[in-house]
Amino acid sequence: MAKSMILAGFHAVGARLRKDPDSIHCVYVDPARRDKRMMQMRDELKELGVRVMQASHERLNGMVSRDIPHQGIVAMADNLDVALSFDELMNNIRPDTLLLILDGITDPRNFGACLRSADAAGVQAVIIPKDRSASVTPAAAKAAAGASETVPVVTVTNLAAAIVELRDAGVTVVGAAGEATKTIYDFDQTGAFAWVMGAEGPGLRQLTRKRCDDLAKIPLTGSVESLNVSVATGICLFESVRQRYNNKK
Amino acid sequence: MAKSMILAGFHAVGARLRKDPDSIHCVYVDPARRDKRMMQMRDELKELGVRVMQASHERLNGMVSRDIPHQGIVAMADNLDVALSFDELMNNIRPDTLLLILDGITDPRNFGACLRSADAAGVQAVIIPKDRSASVTPAAAKAAAGASETVPVVTVTNLAAAIVELRDAGVTVVGAAGEATKTIYDFDQTGAFAWVMGAEGPGLRQLTRKRCDDLAKIPLTGSVESLNVSVATGICLFESVRQRYNNKK
Repeated sequence: MAKSMILAGFHAVGARLRKDPDSIHCVYVDPARRDKRMMQMRDELKELGVRVMQASHERLNGMVSRDIPHQGIVAMADNLDVALSFDELMNNIRPDTLLLILDGITDPRNFGACLRSADAAGVQAVIIPKDRSASVTPAAAKAAAGASETVPVVTVTNLAAAIVELRDAGVTVVGAAGEATKTIYDFDQTGAFAWVMGAEGPGLRQLTRKRCDDLAKIPLTGSVESLNVSVATGICLFESVRQRYNNKK
Repeated sequence: MAKSMILAGFHAVGARLRKDPDSIHCVYVDPARRDKRMMQMRDELKELGVRVMQASHERLNGMVSRDIPHQGIVAMADNLDVALSFDELMNNIRPDTLLLILDGITDPRNFGACLRSADAAGVQAVIIPKDRSASVTPAAAKAAAGASETVPVVTVTNLAAAIVELRDAGVTVVGAAGEATKTIYDFDQTGAFAWVMGAEGPGLRQLTRKRCDDLAKIPLTGSVESLNVSVATGICLFESVRQRYNNKK
């Protein structure tokens, strides 16, 4: 039997409901919430035959990690496995592959938002190092708004070696780094391409940086030194989307 | 005397330190943190003659809102006022003005990240409705990484009327909406331009939507329905940056 997991909030429960309603064991809802959004969700759950149980706000709080706004709805569901091995990924590199490599993002909300953007940008897989990264916790799944179950996450033990293999397979690998001289707009991203994003504070590790084809910065004009890492990831990925979109016009 | 405020975390304290060290009354640091980042910060504080006091992790927790990772450093400082009136803004519209209008972003972390991106993109001012918006709380200031003190925030009572005035002054106002037919790449953003972003769940209000020149979507290819609002804001603003950057080349 598949491992169980908790999904918290309308986005996460709704995404699973659309994807695979049979994988939901039951949904706990706060009976004190009688707003339109909750009523629509309850109608939908009823229609699909999903078991609904009532649980107070306090009881729902106890089911999820602190800091997760569950919005009065929590589901218990099968843990759908979208993990992919690096070998499987390497066997499926296409001429238009778009990949996202996260070099040690530790904040679960940022990690989740990166997965959400990756899904939205049509990223084929997200690659993370085994030892220093956030994983798909409930907080990350909530921020991912369902994308933690659609975007394959590839865990590798040696990220620098993985980058070399990707380059050997024809993927252009560019790391985002504030001190780069070229900008993200200076690279052709219409072919097989991978963005590498560094951790919140320290950025890319030395060895990761060295293994990339090149580095690119997002040109900043204000007084802040950097962008939030999930925002920076979205900007880089959607520059690739823009180029591909204009290319198809 | 100026009102005091709390700055929490390395980003927020560091930004103020670079901007106006004399406005910092004192900095509380956790003596248990002896890592490189803290030691560098303490050296910098000492050099600038800022008063440093020791406070345990628990005491620092008590100084800031829950859910704010203070990273062992909290500053008490003057509240630097970067508020701007709508009239002042209207008197300073330039041919290359870039504005960000947030129609009811309520999550402080998202609001702060939007301010951070706005600063980085060279936005002249962020416009928010008086009644339904996050304000510059400690959680927002932390997520803004200093930008809450550099980007002017204009509060208006009637957002729809403000949009009409901006259009009359020659600003093209485009709202981000998933159901739009045009994409964000279809608009010339090199002149006076304003992006309007809707709230996390409901998006743009009906009247806001109606008052815009046009609507634009970020083209999404995956299974998620939308992006995190601060990520979407970053993508829209940096499409404007890209167009202006390429224009200057």
